[in-house]
Amino acid sequence: MPGAEASTESRRSPKWEARRQAIVDTSAHLFARQGYHATGITELCAANDLGKGALYHYIGSKEELLVAIHDRVMDEVMAGAERVVQSGASPATQLAMLGDELLDVINRYPDHVWVFLHEFHALTGENTDQFRGRRREYERMVEDILRAGVKAGEFRDVDPWLTARTWLGMHNYTYLWLQQRGRVSARDVAKPFADLFLRGIEKPKRPR
Amino acid sequence: MPGAEASTESRRSPKWEARRQAIVDTSAHLFARQGYHATGITELCAANDLGKGALYHYIGSKEELLVAIHDRVMDEVMAGAERVVQSGASPATQLAMLGDELLDVINRYPDHVWVFLHEFHALTGENTDQFRGRRREYERMVEDILRAGVKAGEFRDVDPWLTARTWLGMHNYTYLWLQQRGRVSARDVAKPFADLFLRGIEKPKRPR
Repeated sequence: MPGAEASTESRRSPKWEARRQAIVDTSAHLFARQGYHATGITELCAANDLGKGALYHYIGSKEELLVAIHDRVMDEVMAGAERVVQSGASPATQLAMLGDELLDVINRYPDHVWVFLHEFHALTGENTDQFRGRRREYERMVEDILRAGVKAGEFRDVDPWLTARTWLGMHNYTYLWLQQRGRVSARDVAKPFADLFLRGIEKPKRPR
Repeated sequence: MPGAEASTESRRSPKWEARRQAIVDTSAHLFARQGYHATGITELCAANDLGKGALYHYIGSKEELLVAIHDRVMDEVMAGAERVVQSGASPATQLAMLGDELLDVINRYPDHVWVFLHEFHALTGENTDQFRGRRREYERMVEDILRAGVKAGEFRDVDPWLTARTWLGMHNYTYLWLQQRGRVSARDVAKPFADLFLRGIEKPKRPR
């Protein structure tokens, strides 16, 4: 009987967490294919081989599922960014490392990232605020690296806000083709990206 | 009575075309706010102040409406690209001009572009093929400019496919903030974008 197992796992136990994560992943795949609003609870139950009660036992609500997908992406992205900041490398190296980390997440979680970039407006109230806050935190880290590079005389006097968005656009947008390209790895893309971007912002060695 | 006017306009007459275009614009706004699948025909009727029969008289089907929104964006984007190619300018200048044209479309049609970038997977069959074809045609124009620049020795020996996607990502992604920023115009963004990108791909004057 579908969902019978649910009653045996208490909330927040390691088994419950693992099952919940598997549900989040399966649902991300479904949302990425057909959209969040177009995917009903009945379909989510079928895809996860669970009854309605059991599904709610793991996810709480459909919106909580969407929140979990966003968190999965942001947790990974922020962990990567923390590694970069902890490295204490130069701004140019940090920016290259950050691109490496970001493309790696986009490559490993294509469905989650698709949902993240397409369905964030489906979040409501507090969930929207929380998502915006985390996203803003990451954007600030990119801006800070750029600001540090300008201050150190490594980069030209670029606008950190605008330049961070340029950087984010070229990296985030790879979700459309990164996996389809097949023959290139995330790192194969990160390298020429960093090369182009750093040449684009670095201070010329001689006056131009 | 809503929709009564419909019967008086024959298909493809200038008045019919104008009314249809207004419906496309209003619907783009609605789709951008709440998503294509989540927006029903009843809502589209209310937003356009038309009865069901009258709405169908103008749009044919909900998917045709989505196609019209995509076409509105692609028509403008391709017209801009044609102007650039006809200019006969150098590859670097053409790339800067193309960025100017693209950001101008994103700035003028924020709702249409939102729908374009979020809902293209809602198109089906022939509509998908046609949309992909037009999008591919534009991508090829960017690749061709890059290839010409490499051939002329203006640009480094970059991968035209990957570099075109870098360029597209940084420009397309502005739909998320271009209008919200308010104080900057599309041209204020196009200029530093072109500056960064061209520095990033131009051939160094001396060996590095």
